[in-house]
Amino acid sequence: MTYSHIPTPALILDKAKLIANISRMTNHIKALGVDLRPHMKTGKSMEVARLAMAGNFGGITVSTLREADYFAAFGVTDITLAACLAPAKLDRAAALRAAGIDLKILVDHPRMAQAVAAHAGEHHVLIEIDCGEHRTGLLPAAPEIMDIARCLDAAPRATLAGVLTHAGHSYQSRQAPEMTAVAETERDAVVGVARQLHDAGMACPIVSVGSTPTATHARDLTGVSEARPGVYMFGDLFQAGIGSCTVDDIAVSVLATVIAHRRQENVMFIDAGGLALSKDRSTQALANDCAYGLVCQADSGQPIAGLTVSTVHQEHGQISATTALDFDRYPIGSQLRILPNHVCMTAAAYTEYHVTTAPGQALEIWPRCNGW
Amino acid sequence: MTYSHIPTPALILDKAKLIANISRMTNHIKALGVDLRPHMKTGKSMEVARLAMAGNFGGITVSTLREADYFAAFGVTDITLAACLAPAKLDRAAALRAAGIDLKILVDHPRMAQAVAAHAGEHHVLIEIDCGEHRTGLLPAAPEIMDIARCLDAAPRATLAGVLTHAGHSYQSRQAPEMTAVAETERDAVVGVARQLHDAGMACPIVSVGSTPTATHARDLTGVSEARPGVYMFGDLFQAGIGSCTVDDIAVSVLATVIAHRRQENVMFIDAGGLALSKDRSTQALANDCAYGLVCQADSGQPIAGLTVSTVHQEHGQISATTALDFDRYPIGSQLRILPNHVCMTAAAYTEYHVTTAPGQALEIWPRCNGW
Repeated sequence: MTYSHIPTPALILDKAKLIANISRMTNHIKALGVDLRPHMKTGKSMEVARLAMAGNFGGITVSTLREADYFAAFGVTDITLAACLAPAKLDRAAALRAAGIDLKILVDHPRMAQAVAAHAGEHHVLIEIDCGEHRTGLLPAAPEIMDIARCLDAAPRATLAGVLTHAGHSYQSRQAPEMTAVAETERDAVVGVARQLHDAGMACPIVSVGSTPTATHARDLTGVSEARPGVYMFGDLFQAGIGSCTVDDIAVSVLATVIAHRRQENVMFIDAGGLALSKDRSTQALANDCAYGLVCQADSGQPIAGLTVSTVHQEHGQISATTALDFDRYPIGSQLRILPNHVCMTAAAYTEYHVTTAPGQALEIWPRCNGW
Repeated sequence: MTYSHIPTPALILDKAKLIANISRMTNHIKALGVDLRPHMKTGKSMEVARLAMAGNFGGITVSTLREADYFAAFGVTDITLAACLAPAKLDRAAALRAAGIDLKILVDHPRMAQAVAAHAGEHHVLIEIDCGEHRTGLLPAAPEIMDIARCLDAAPRATLAGVLTHAGHSYQSRQAPEMTAVAETERDAVVGVARQLHDAGMACPIVSVGSTPTATHARDLTGVSEARPGVYMFGDLFQAGIGSCTVDDIAVSVLATVIAHRRQENVMFIDAGGLALSKDRSTQALANDCAYGLVCQADSGQPIAGLTVSTVHQEHGQISATTALDFDRYPIGSQLRILPNHVCMTAAAYTEYHVTTAPGQALEIWPRCNGW
């Protein structure tokens, strides 16, 4: 398989790896007796969503209303927007619900609950719980939870649909037992609040947990109704570094072309820089810092030992090597592929995937939905 | 002026600041007796280009062939692509020239010169010189320069159009006299090579220097024909940090909405995260580290002392404060504006600018051209 006909930089998606990653998570979550509501913030593509939804119940998670609109237009009807939204966006959220989309939105503040309750449109609401990341969400013991629940319960057009949490602090774990422990904290946080709501006589049908590391390492999700991992579909160097996948599982890479050699400095340049790779440096926190990405053979996708993208400019990526570079192996005009640190950030620079299938077969183009 | 009708995150462009920044650079470069060929890699918008070209000779600089196609479609006919390109893109470059666009491309390797010389299309070529950044380009003393020049001179369809350099290492300077010294090195590098080419009997009409810091601080550009700064139009926190502009000159900001409060941790969250702001951390290298951006009042655009975006997630930005946050001043649903570290990276996440004009006047929307 060769990519010489594809203008670089371009986003390459390995369909076989994508399907394997999706199957692994689908089977794992199914074995735990929980629904999988794949988070489409990474893939942002209906073709990816179709594969991720296969064998699952058909609901998805999104990070923006733009994604919600996009997937709704393709007939997805069960969508959770898993980020607190600006009150000014309640009109747009209500319009989706009025159009027959079962959209769930998040609330973590009594004032926002009041705004939702007072809004002219219908809303189904999940209360966001903070299980330890300390981003948005209320701590499980916060008295505001019952204030919000009662406010929504009394509202004529709002419905309390459940509770949701995201164990983003799992990204700080490095070992599987740690991840499993974070997954238990994540579960306990929402299951406890759901019980509290039940005890107060309120229905709480959705008990939702998230994050690829905790979904991967969860052993018992009793009391949880659904899991919302997302980056597992593609994987990236950060997820490989913390054990959510292997480097070989990573399904997305950036195709680039060698545009310059600097023999004296033992570096070369590709036409993929900060815009094509993103400036994410999340692997800096790991034992195996991958700089701005690992360099792979273009055709096989196999990493080339010792080669990383060490520096990025807007349109230039500098490749450094731990040993003397064999420049004749990488002539100007030759292609390489770069594995990304954080695929959600990298993929966002592109409007489409070049999807590899079997060797020799024509590539498919899958569009992406970016922006807000 | 209020922005409450604009869905967030959104890119705000202050037209008065843009025009002032453009005038300052246009006048400065004119006073130095040199043509200004504005680099559109930052603005990526025909409306911005029209202002930047006003009072200048009409040529522009671009960083991608996508930009070249975009500006050519609006009638810009003199375009320099100031980044070495993949040989596979020579067809696309030649198609632009065949369509009447005076496109100049860069070469910094004899093999690429041979590929250009052998290509079926016509090409006008600038030899890229490395004046100290050590990115792409040949050192002024490199013997390959004359090899490339002779190869192009002898080619039936290629034309040697001149020499070009970019003093990217000016970004490491912190003081005006240092910048001025780098600008002199930049000038000397290309002027010396141009003389060498003249002495060898070859025409070298274009002698091109770049970079906003060196263009800002240059005092004498004798022998140079044109300057190609770009980020000066907008400015950003990095440029302010190294003295290319002031914080008050920064013309682009991200409009965001407060979506969550965490009183206990003295932080709040906005709906602009890593995708909306970029993960650029270039100000980390400066005395005044601005984290992921400085927080400003939405209406006035005035920075709020002590507030920065301290952490970003994909769609969440965490705002931290050096003193106790007055949460009542920033209720959920209120808007803020964020000044970017590196505006080229931040702007690339958006397809359009919301352009502010006079208070109370309707905003204009200016589209951007992203991708490759």
